[in-house]
Amino acid sequence: MATCYLSPSKSVTIPLQTNLFTSTPKPVFGLRCNLSLPSKTSLITGEPAPLYSSVKTFAPATVANLGPGFDFLGCAVDGMGDFVALNVDPHVHPGEISISAISGNNVGKLSKNPLRNCAGIAAIEVMKMLGIRSVGLSLMLEKGLPLGSGLGSSAASAAAAAVAVNEIFGNKLGFEELVLAGLKSEEKVSGYHADNVAPAIMGGFVLIRSYEPLDLIQLKFPNDKQLFFVLVSPDFEAPTKQMRAALPAEIGMSHHVWNCSQAGALVASVLQGDLLGLGKALSSDKIVEPRRAPLIPGMEGVKKAAMEAGAFGCTISGAGPTAVAVTDNEERGKEIGKLMVEAFLKGGKLQASATVKQLDRVGARLVSSIKI
Amino acid sequence: MATCYLSPSKSVTIPLQTNLFTSTPKPVFGLRCNLSLPSKTSLITGEPAPLYSSVKTFAPATVANLGPGFDFLGCAVDGMGDFVALNVDPHVHPGEISISAISGNNVGKLSKNPLRNCAGIAAIEVMKMLGIRSVGLSLMLEKGLPLGSGLGSSAASAAAAAVAVNEIFGNKLGFEELVLAGLKSEEKVSGYHADNVAPAIMGGFVLIRSYEPLDLIQLKFPNDKQLFFVLVSPDFEAPTKQMRAALPAEIGMSHHVWNCSQAGALVASVLQGDLLGLGKALSSDKIVEPRRAPLIPGMEGVKKAAMEAGAFGCTISGAGPTAVAVTDNEERGKEIGKLMVEAFLKGGKLQASATVKQLDRVGARLVSSIKI
Repeated sequence: MATCYLSPSKSVTIPLQTNLFTSTPKPVFGLRCNLSLPSKTSLITGEPAPLYSSVKTFAPATVANLGPGFDFLGCAVDGMGDFVALNVDPHVHPGEISISAISGNNVGKLSKNPLRNCAGIAAIEVMKMLGIRSVGLSLMLEKGLPLGSGLGSSAASAAAAAVAVNEIFGNKLGFEELVLAGLKSEEKVSGYHADNVAPAIMGGFVLIRSYEPLDLIQLKFPNDKQLFFVLVSPDFEAPTKQMRAALPAEIGMSHHVWNCSQAGALVASVLQGDLLGLGKALSSDKIVEPRRAPLIPGMEGVKKAAMEAGAFGCTISGAGPTAVAVTDNEERGKEIGKLMVEAFLKGGKLQASATVKQLDRVGARLVSSIKI
Repeated sequence: MATCYLSPSKSVTIPLQTNLFTSTPKPVFGLRCNLSLPSKTSLITGEPAPLYSSVKTFAPATVANLGPGFDFLGCAVDGMGDFVALNVDPHVHPGEISISAISGNNVGKLSKNPLRNCAGIAAIEVMKMLGIRSVGLSLMLEKGLPLGSGLGSSAASAAAAAVAVNEIFGNKLGFEELVLAGLKSEEKVSGYHADNVAPAIMGGFVLIRSYEPLDLIQLKFPNDKQLFFVLVSPDFEAPTKQMRAALPAEIGMSHHVWNCSQAGALVASVLQGDLLGLGKALSSDKIVEPRRAPLIPGMEGVKKAAMEAGAFGCTISGAGPTAVAVTDNEERGKEIGKLMVEAFLKGGKLQASATVKQLDRVGARLVSSIKI
């Protein structure tokens, strides 16, 4: 293991450490970030000590907007997401964090500079909140989610990182603080909105009631009900700028009342476990989806195909291009997905892949840990 | 008892019948309405026979809009409302209805022509739905609610009448059909909206999800929670036209998202029995209340007074001028009401009266009946 300190702010760490992804020690390289806090070698009063030498966390994919829940509602889907492994690293300057490795989807597009990486920014925020000045950390990110798919890729990285830092220091922070840390990350990547990062951290459905102060409402979907999401991602990069430009600046009163009532119906359907109602609300958006769907080739036909195949509802996941449909049966979900894939090919000349996932009721979580 | 038939469509009935309000028989006078259906003296196949010779029903006051629930959400409040007494009347032409008496508030402003009276229109609709062609009915309306107060006065009359006709013929129709009948009435009086008449009929909180087809969601407030409404009505006639003209035609995206999220939060708060959240949502409207409140002298100060006195939230009831605040304690409610009355006097130079009422969980109901 070698550590080269060029200067306090330009050091490069080359630690040899346990990689929780591969379970074999290997050297990792990375930039690190100064938290603008004085570094000290001994623990400062009130600063929590790490309970673990390393932790591994997972944060799920998320579906934001959900039709009329535009910009304030999202939910987590199980079995897809990002992993973060975090180590207490004596070779990282105390109070700082280093991203030592990124693996998985879109590795080339992600920066190892913690200040420019979703996971890094969220981790730094949590370290700040905890007042960590005596311990250096190194972080490895394993991207399970593709970027720009509308499945909350950046939020999953931020959520996994925020929870990892919190866990390694004994789980001192609550959901709200972790979401605030995630928001700092989202702000730099896709705007100050929590409809992905809140459900990625908290699991299930989350309604963002306000930002000043942050006020989140967990909407508990009944445990005895099954809810499956059919997620169909076309091989297409959604034109982010056009997607945002397509949003109307002004909305007519009748459409406003309609979407508001559908948002209310969506919330009621979730809490009452009414899948038919949930699907109906999902499909009901008259404001955003009609503007964005035409920018995703074939989307109109994909929604039609989903509904004809028996989906309860269908809309665009986040800002797209993934289409999301809901059903209560996994096998039916697979059939719906197959027909949606065909519709993307037929109507949009796009290859697409389908997956059927359940609601994630847990959110970002500890996967494994090694005690100090 | 005398009956004068001038012509089939211009008859005047002067029946002597049991008055359920006074419990003493007295002659009543009224116009009656032809349902445009052939009248027959014998029961037609499929036409239900009356089970009662007379029924008396009650329908509660309602608070519509509830802040961000503008035009699609309402709830019923207990202990205030309108009564309808309905009699099978052989002196009324079969298949027709006659309004024999109107008593209580604003009697002079109400027509006895069933086609121009909220109760009459709703009663006729229910008779049509049931296919009543062999029985004539006479209706007495006792107004407990003042007109134009924002407490769903017309809806209460329509609801009580619709339920009365349904009850007298054996309760064949469900909520949705009764609401549709009530809507016919509301359409003529204040526009095609069900946010008063649906809760007046169904009780509790009701979300109107759509009109084509009519789709209503009952939002069950937990039985173990107390919810009190402080209703403060100033001596002021709300300028209905101005109230409607004050609504913005177009709404900015940020306000739309805000109100949508608050509507969702309101629904969640009701279902979760979260009074603090319910109050917060009630107070949160950024679209309608800011435009309408200035048209009700003193309203801004009234809301402030309610909040300072410990109300969870406060807004305009329906289109006003009544102000509604919520709390979980009756005594606190009285104190809040007192301060709101003072604020109307101080800020708006208006006399006002306050009352504290619980959530009505039942809706329009049978009060008494006499079997045939």
